[in-house]
Amino acid sequence: MKVVVIGAGGTIGKAVASALSGKHEVVHAFRHGPVQVDLEDGASITRLFATVKDVDAVACCAGNAAFGPLSKLTDAEFQLCLRSKLMGQVNLVRAAAGHLRDGGSITLTGGVLAHEPIPGGAAISMVNAALEGFVVGASLELSRGLRLNLVSPPWITETLKQMKMDNVPGAISAATCARAYLAAIEGKQKGEILDARRFA
Amino acid sequence: MKVVVIGAGGTIGKAVASALSGKHEVVHAFRHGPVQVDLEDGASITRLFATVKDVDAVACCAGNAAFGPLSKLTDAEFQLCLRSKLMGQVNLVRAAAGHLRDGGSITLTGGVLAHEPIPGGAAISMVNAALEGFVVGASLELSRGLRLNLVSPPWITETLKQMKMDNVPGAISAATCARAYLAAIEGKQKGEILDARRFA
Repeated sequence: MKVVVIGAGGTIGKAVASALSGKHEVVHAFRHGPVQVDLEDGASITRLFATVKDVDAVACCAGNAAFGPLSKLTDAEFQLCLRSKLMGQVNLVRAAAGHLRDGGSITLTGGVLAHEPIPGGAAISMVNAALEGFVVGASLELSRGLRLNLVSPPWITETLKQMKMDNVPGAISAATCARAYLAAIEGKQKGEILDARRFA
Repeated sequence: MKVVVIGAGGTIGKAVASALSGKHEVVHAFRHGPVQVDLEDGASITRLFATVKDVDAVACCAGNAAFGPLSKLTDAEFQLCLRSKLMGQVNLVRAAAGHLRDGGSITLTGGVLAHEPIPGGAAISMVNAALEGFVVGASLELSRGLRLNLVSPPWITETLKQMKMDNVPGAISAATCARAYLAAIEGKQKGEILDARRFA
């Protein structure tokens, strides 16, 4: 399969690209990657599908959201969440639906905060849950056998280390998380939310 | 209790206001109501809390979202969903959190499409699920004993009639739906999603 990994420069995206390589042809797409895509820039997504052809699968491991106390989150931080992690991925699906090969798949990234909230995570819970609702709804309408799923990662151990945070119960490595994306890409499921902890 | 019903001019809002009256002091707020509030206009929400004081509860039965095939939904229709039904209600919570009386409550409106999708409902599933995620997350952070909950209505029989649509299995009357809002306003629950069909 030819698989485009968006956000292939990030912690999860690198692990997904690495897990795919060998078995599949991987297109590494990120903001400063060999194929340049910025999820917040719709034109860059249009360009992606105009230049990279015969794509079987897209895995999106990109998208920003804001963490902070609800009473301090700004309008701009809420808008970042909506524009980047939410609508960036929604717009990717809208574009990919017209370009993927028949039977192709799209795998998005949400997160367990959708249902397991923590203080400071209200805007992230909001967009992660929004992505789940969108995947479940949009999945019904995709034609040509296209499949749409979402991987819901918990904390990633490499990210915790980068942020100099203590380990968090339930955290998994990026390599473990990548197995959830592979399951979605290589499987048959549609409209499914894959809790990445199931793959530990 | 003094309860502000936002969207008190709509099908569900009227039923909620009617169910509350007699037992509680009801402030009818809507776009062309005695107290004018437009959920998409943040200044009108600020004005609401500057003029209406000593509020114990806010019930929001307002907010627009777009229904239509995913392949035809426009950027503007997605933005309407985010600006009105989603961020309109999120911004209401952010404002109300600083103004309600101690122990007060905020009750928002989502919808069962969050988890029970239908073709044409992808953007609505997205915002309804987003609201659930926000309520669950934000609820953790509210101080002064404030409670935040969400009522998830199915199709409302009066709405189906207005739209000249056939009845839909599981549809309930606006009066039945209003009982879910009363339960949230008069109860003790926090961060709960109330499926309005439970009140039939």
